[in-house]
Amino acid sequence: MPLKAAGTAAHLAEQFTQVRALTCALAEPLSEADAQVQSMPDASPVKWHLAHTTWFFETLLLERFEAGFRAHHPAYRMLFNSYYNAVGAQHARPQRGLITRPGLAEIQAWRRAVDRRVHDWLSSHPPEPALALLTLGLNHEQQHQELILSDLKHLLGCNPLAPAYRARPAHAGKAADVPALGWVSHDGGPVDIGHAGAGFAFDNEAPRHRHWLAPHALADRLVTQGEFAGFIADGGYGDPRWWLSAGWDWVRTQQASAPMYWQREPQGGWSAFTLHGLQPLQADAPAVHLNLYEADAYARWAGAQSGMPLRLPTEAEWEHGVERSGAAARVQTMGLCADTLESLHPQADLARRGSAGHGKGPLHQAFGQVWQWTASAYAAYPGYRPWAGAVGEYNGKFMVNQYVLRGSSFATPRGHARLSYRNFFPADARWQFTGLRLACDLR
Amino acid sequence: MPLKAAGTAAHLAEQFTQVRALTCALAEPLSEADAQVQSMPDASPVKWHLAHTTWFFETLLLERFEAGFRAHHPAYRMLFNSYYNAVGAQHARPQRGLITRPGLAEIQAWRRAVDRRVHDWLSSHPPEPALALLTLGLNHEQQHQELILSDLKHLLGCNPLAPAYRARPAHAGKAADVPALGWVSHDGGPVDIGHAGAGFAFDNEAPRHRHWLAPHALADRLVTQGEFAGFIADGGYGDPRWWLSAGWDWVRTQQASAPMYWQREPQGGWSAFTLHGLQPLQADAPAVHLNLYEADAYARWAGAQSGMPLRLPTEAEWEHGVERSGAAARVQTMGLCADTLESLHPQADLARRGSAGHGKGPLHQAFGQVWQWTASAYAAYPGYRPWAGAVGEYNGKFMVNQYVLRGSSFATPRGHARLSYRNFFPADARWQFTGLRLACDLR
Amino acid sequence: MPLKAAGTAAHLAEQFTQVRALTCALAEPLSEADAQVQSMPDASPVKWHLAHTTWFFETLLLERFEAGFRAHHPAYRMLFNSYYNAVGAQHARPQRGLITRPGLAEIQAWRRAVDRRVHDWLSSHPPEPALALLTLGLNHEQQHQELILSDLKHLLGCNPLAPAYRARPAHAGKAADVPALGWVSHDGGPVDIGHAGAGFAFDNEAPRHRHWLAPHALADRLVTQGEFAGFIADGGYGDPRWWLSAGWDWVRTQQASAPMYWQREPQGGWSAFTLHGLQPLQADAPAVHLNLYEADAYARWAGAQSGMPLRLPTEAEWEHGVERSGAAARVQTMGLCADTLESLHPQADLARRGSAGHGKGPLHQAFGQVWQWTASAYAAYPGYRPWAGAVGEYNGKFMVNQYVLRGSSFATPRGHARLSYRNFFPADARWQFTGLRLACDLR
Amino acid sequence: MPLKAAGTAAHLAEQFTQVRALTCALAEPLSEADAQVQSMPDASPVKWHLAHTTWFFETLLLERFEAGFRAHHPAYRMLFNSYYNAVGAQHARPQRGLITRPGLAEIQAWRRAVDRRVHDWLSSHPPEPALALLTLGLNHEQQHQELILSDLKHLLGCNPLAPAYRARPAHAGKAADVPALGWVSHDGGPVDIGHAGAGFAFDNEAPRHRHWLAPHALADRLVTQGEFAGFIADGGYGDPRWWLSAGWDWVRTQQASAPMYWQREPQGGWSAFTLHGLQPLQADAPAVHLNLYEADAYARWAGAQSGMPLRLPTEAEWEHGVERSGAAARVQTMGLCADTLESLHPQADLARRGSAGHGKGPLHQAFGQVWQWTASAYAAYPGYRPWAGAVGEYNGKFMVNQYVLRGSSFATPRGHARLSYRNFFPADARWQFTGLRLACDLR
Repeated sequence: MPLKAAGTAAHLAEQFTQVRALTCALAEPLSEADAQVQSMPDASPVKWHLAHTTWFFETLLLERFEAGFRAHHPAYRMLFNSYYNAVGAQHARPQRGLITRPGLAEIQAWRRAVDRRVHDWLSSHPPEPALALLTLGLNHEQQHQELILSDLKHLLGCNPLAPAYRARPAHAGKAADVPALGWVSHDGGPVDIGHAGAGFAFDNEAPRHRHWLAPHALADRLVTQGEFAGFIADGGYGDPRWWLSAGWDWVRTQQASAPMYWQREPQGGWSAFTLHGLQPLQADAPAVHLNLYEADAYARWAGAQSGMPLRLPTEAEWEHGVERSGAAARVQTMGLCADTLESLHPQADLARRGSAGHGKGPLHQAFGQVWQWTASAYAAYPGYRPWAGAVGEYNGKFMVNQYVLRGSSFATPRGHARLSYRNFFPADARWQFTGLRLACDLR
Repeated sequence: MPLKAAGTAAHLAEQFTQVRALTCALAEPLSEADAQVQSMPDASPVKWHLAHTTWFFETLLLERFEAGFRAHHPAYRMLFNSYYNAVGAQHARPQRGLITRPGLAEIQAWRRAVDRRVHDWLSSHPPEPALALLTLGLNHEQQHQELILSDLKHLLGCNPLAPAYRARPAHAGKAADVPALGWVSHDGGPVDIGHAGAGFAFDNEAPRHRHWLAPHALADRLVTQGEFAGFIADGGYGDPRWWLSAGWDWVRTQQASAPMYWQREPQGGWSAFTLHGLQPLQADAPAVHLNLYEADAYARWAGAQSGMPLRLPTEAEWEHGVERSGAAARVQTMGLCADTLESLHPQADLARRGSAGHGKGPLHQAFGQVWQWTASAYAAYPGYRPWAGAVGEYNGKFMVNQYVLRGSSFATPRGHARLSYRNFFPADARWQFTGLRLACDLR
Repeated sequence: MPLKAAGTAAHLAEQFTQVRALTCALAEPLSEADAQVQSMPDASPVKWHLAHTTWFFETLLLERFEAGFRAHHPAYRMLFNSYYNAVGAQHARPQRGLITRPGLAEIQAWRRAVDRRVHDWLSSHPPEPALALLTLGLNHEQQHQELILSDLKHLLGCNPLAPAYRARPAHAGKAADVPALGWVSHDGGPVDIGHAGAGFAFDNEAPRHRHWLAPHALADRLVTQGEFAGFIADGGYGDPRWWLSAGWDWVRTQQASAPMYWQREPQGGWSAFTLHGLQPLQADAPAVHLNLYEADAYARWAGAQSGMPLRLPTEAEWEHGVERSGAAARVQTMGLCADTLESLHPQADLARRGSAGHGKGPLHQAFGQVWQWTASAYAAYPGYRPWAGAVGEYNGKFMVNQYVLRGSSFATPRGHARLSYRNFFPADARWQFTGLRLACDLR
Repeated sequence: MPLKAAGTAAHLAEQFTQVRALTCALAEPLSEADAQVQSMPDASPVKWHLAHTTWFFETLLLERFEAGFRAHHPAYRMLFNSYYNAVGAQHARPQRGLITRPGLAEIQAWRRAVDRRVHDWLSSHPPEPALALLTLGLNHEQQHQELILSDLKHLLGCNPLAPAYRARPAHAGKAADVPALGWVSHDGGPVDIGHAGAGFAFDNEAPRHRHWLAPHALADRLVTQGEFAGFIADGGYGDPRWWLSAGWDWVRTQQASAPMYWQREPQGGWSAFTLHGLQPLQADAPAVHLNLYEADAYARWAGAQSGMPLRLPTEAEWEHGVERSGAAARVQTMGLCADTLESLHPQADLARRGSAGHGKGPLHQAFGQVWQWTASAYAAYPGYRPWAGAVGEYNGKFMVNQYVLRGSSFATPRGHARLSYRNFFPADARWQFTGLRLACDLR
């Protein structure tokens, strides 16, 4: 699948303005210190995200297409190259936080300069392949917008003072009753998955191809924080029966006893660190910050409680199920935008949707709450071809030892998610906004 | 799929005798020191293999079914438990080599005592579920027979003296010309894979289920040592284009520059450490001791050389292709047995087979040479159910972060391999007898 | 030795003002990002130094002596406690850099508030033991002033852009000829070392006690950068003969081939990263950023070149030699102060001193250039008693696996150094301003 | 101090026979597996000790002095070189246990062959420097005899079955009352320590030199197991007040709560693993397997209990005190020999000695029980010169980050210990036979 532009130059110019502005809005409440620190090798400083997304436009787009291109600063090409061997040397990932100079103001100035240059260039009738790269740059920056929030949460979560990124919304209410799990079943058979047709998609979503599904059912909503607390209360983190062998090793090595950011309250119950500071656990909201091991163990435990063969869905089951349920229709209206910055945590949004159906009913919470772990290892679709050039390193070279997550989270920018989207992380990663939807074998 | 006995008590008694004897034959040339040492956490001492396979029969079979059961030694239940949490505590894996007492003679005596008890018990009309467990125990011991050879090779390979496990066969000849790669193509569509019907299989090979294949072709033979040397000569270990990102990290961290056990000769060329000591590289024999990263990188490089979209096959492509080609017919006559102990290395067996065909021709070297990496992560088949009881921990709990290998190697015991067999190892493992067969997208 | 006040309340108030101001002056050129980052576990963020030195006054002084004490912020007591178990819990050292909140402005405000409170309290006729603690707090802050410069240099040195902390002084000239090493000899016998009498000293400098010296000579100046380059040119980092066994392990593990911050220039020669950015190596200046292994190896190599039994001096040899030479007389006029901030690197200050003498001549460069490694492990003097209370943890509990350095560096604040001062670091530390003076056995 | 022969060729021939025989006697009860395994990088396999001691004679003696020298096996020169860079390459220390070939029988044959060659050579009027090297080889082998026991104990102690090296002596009786600690005081002043005069000594014991002692007292016996149990019962491992900072880090990292090999009994009390298997703790015997941190913490705790400034002695205090007390007179009659192999653990030998004196009374248990940690870092004596040639690497290059132990243990071969002997280990080592004697400041 070739890389394609998602609109005209004029349309993309408008999008460019919006996307770039949202990134700045995300960084706006931060001190230079907040934006500087790298809290672990897997996370990057916010300043680095601001720089790297700009690097993408300058190095992969302007360097190739801008007339009379001159680099803003000759060292930035190496300094903010994440992993593109085709571009050349890279600053070591675990040392991103050590680069205090250029400072935040210099990076912001670079951003503004590149913004101007891109707009100027866009008005010069750029060719379609260039607009396609710009489109990719916009989607790339949207991915980093979500990472800004997860990486920043990790940093603030390391602080014993549990500082809030933004003040808590006033309207947070009491936990409502969560409807019982409903199941949407499928008889199995051939289905087609993967991106096809119009609109931007990453190369790893293509080609659209056939897949044979086994009979199964998908839960019509996500597992909640309250349900996950039941797993803990039943001794779930201490019982090897529920865990993959590697998961059990992880539990013991990390001495894990609850999801990331959960804290046991002295008087009983749980609180959880959020981007709005430490909050009482919201039992009716989707469980979040689970890794694959925890999601898989929960499914096994829940299966034993219910007598059903529960498991994680495959990505094909998820994609086809969501497509069939029509749940993807509203995806464009969901997710992070300038209007949602005051409420940055998964929500219990079920009550207003009515009770869950059975059979071919809707799959609630497919998008906009938490990414959903699947049982599918991240691998090439049959016939997959990476894009040509340096951007061929974008997705394909990570297709090993990672697992696919589907849907999107509250932190995924509006307009970025889609039905065929394949997010991926290693099995032990839990600092992303990741939860689970159960599936069940039907046979 | 329930665990089933692979024959009558009398038949199994005969098999038991043979399998147990082969294990002893493998250990026969070893000193007590050779049998004692654990050369890395992933490998186990030969003495531990001798003990653990005996533990399997005593703990999982006799403890449950033998009248008047009394443990041979009360501590062995914990000491030689590999990973069965349902059985209880386990001696830590990386410390298996520290147990010098019981000594080798005591373990051999234990083996003989358990052999007698199993035979006595077999003559007492044991029930079918017990015979099924015995069948599993035999297959389990066969797996450890191959591990004895790979683990022992690793140990001897750490010795600068490069000692031989057994003397080299006299008849080793000159490398013959290897026929050019042929391709066996498939138009895609639904196929069934997985074990069904009679005969023993592991739970992870079931249930048989439908899979939709994309159009593709499989190479009709394995990649050779000579071909892999071409990858090295072309700078393959120094060029990030060929490598998965995690593979490239592995190359640099390990400073890898050739397959495991290869040594550059001062005067040029390569030699390789084998179970028969250091030998000149046999260019026409299948490449072996590759990990998934190396296999994948070779495929990408070979694709760039040939202009074809080469990759590793999926396990469904492999299984269906081998089934269709009829190559599984001879599997029962191949592999390790008392007669093959003098030649313990993959062979260049192509010349005697005639030239490779195209289309639906035979897939050579499917079995009995080296295990073949696939692109498929090790995961549950749709509808997979682990066996009941402690043996439910045999396979299912390892279904993460590993990749499937298909076929069998020269070190796989005769009678153990089959079409639906799923071997699995982590992507960076190279001490097993692992190589590759290329596949190609057809679209 | 009891902790004693170094003057009247009025005198200490003046000192307090000066010391606190110098710390702020050191931080003044830094961005909030520069002040935030911790570049390795051994180093601390500048902001942490600003906070911890304030914590010292608030927690160890005001909490005990201020009427109506109220903590500025309840969490700071734990957050900025370095290692005082008697005070209670501590934030983990390697995570000091993760505390982005409180921000730099809040810490500066805390500093000002504590400054005011200390001054108010000083005007209320505080008792002598309280003034003694204040005196300690001033010396403590002076130690952190030097650490601010070494830790900050480490951070900036990790940046490929090699940013300067302050612009380079204009007057840097050409390297002058360094006078040949002279030797100041001693016939051996009993001498007294250690602090006694008036003036502040740390508990580890007492009691003054007798020591028997062997006949020896001390070099009359420090080893220069140019001399150390000769060691490298002679293959010093590749020859195990010169190295302690642990030093040789360090060389190979770290692949060390030059002192920290040295860079080989493409056209030959060396440059070195300094607080004024990357500069050509100043051959006539003292060698700096050596660890004990490098200092010891240099001595052994220089001994082999010269046929003399060269080694590092013991701390008793150093202290007595410097005392006898009168070199300590000018110590109060040397070192870091508001006037020296424009030149933050060891200097070649030998030319203006005339040629080196022999016999009982002067020992040049005893203070104000670089700390000088000794052969003496950091241990208690006979009869050593730690101070009472929490400040008893200041020095005594570190008396293992460290080595004593004597003298002072250009970064040691004026008024802080003295003859009996015992600095100490582990043998492999090289980010401090550490060099060496040679000694020679005379027998 | 030059290396000197400790007798005539005939005398040394007799000694050689005896020393070599004791090594074989130590290995005699071991299986080939026992002799093969390396239980941690710091420990070596017994087979390696057998080989390396032989290597010493063949490589450092015969290679230089034997007429018509021919190596027994060309690879052994590298394979069994411990750390002599002057000899050339070395097999990596942590991989000593991987060398299963040559086997134990081959190493024993090598030993016998070298024994014959040494005896033949001794009858050919060898020159004095060669006899001096032989003398060193004998002392070297005696050091490895003690290491054989400590390393073997570590290996057997890793085995959950707690196997005995040799059966327990029958006569083990009840713990007797231990006399109260007595103190032997010294007024301070100049003393001479270090080896001088006749008899073999290592280069690090010379030159004899003057040292100024402070007034102090030495305990007249060692700290017992029962006394150390009191430290534990008082919460000693949980209270940072007693520990050096590095020691406290060690406690928490290792989760240490008792000396090595101690096990809490279910019904209360302690047992300890010994070379005779698991035994009830012998309260009246000297505490053993303490590292410097534990010894130092015990001294600080005991000081707080008694109100005395207790600490570890310096090596000068120890040597002079033992010399003055006459306790070294019997050293030649103590320690490991063919007659003591049945009782391999420190003994409570105080009862038969009568009550402890004060003043200049005897220092009991100076030799033959456990090595005694001192407060002295292992460093060169003033004027120290390593021996010439490869044996110059024997001692000098380890003079950093280690601490001196004095006396000897039950496992030190008879004839090997002496007053000036300097044993040394890192502060965290506890697998040696190490305990402590208290000292006290007198001022």
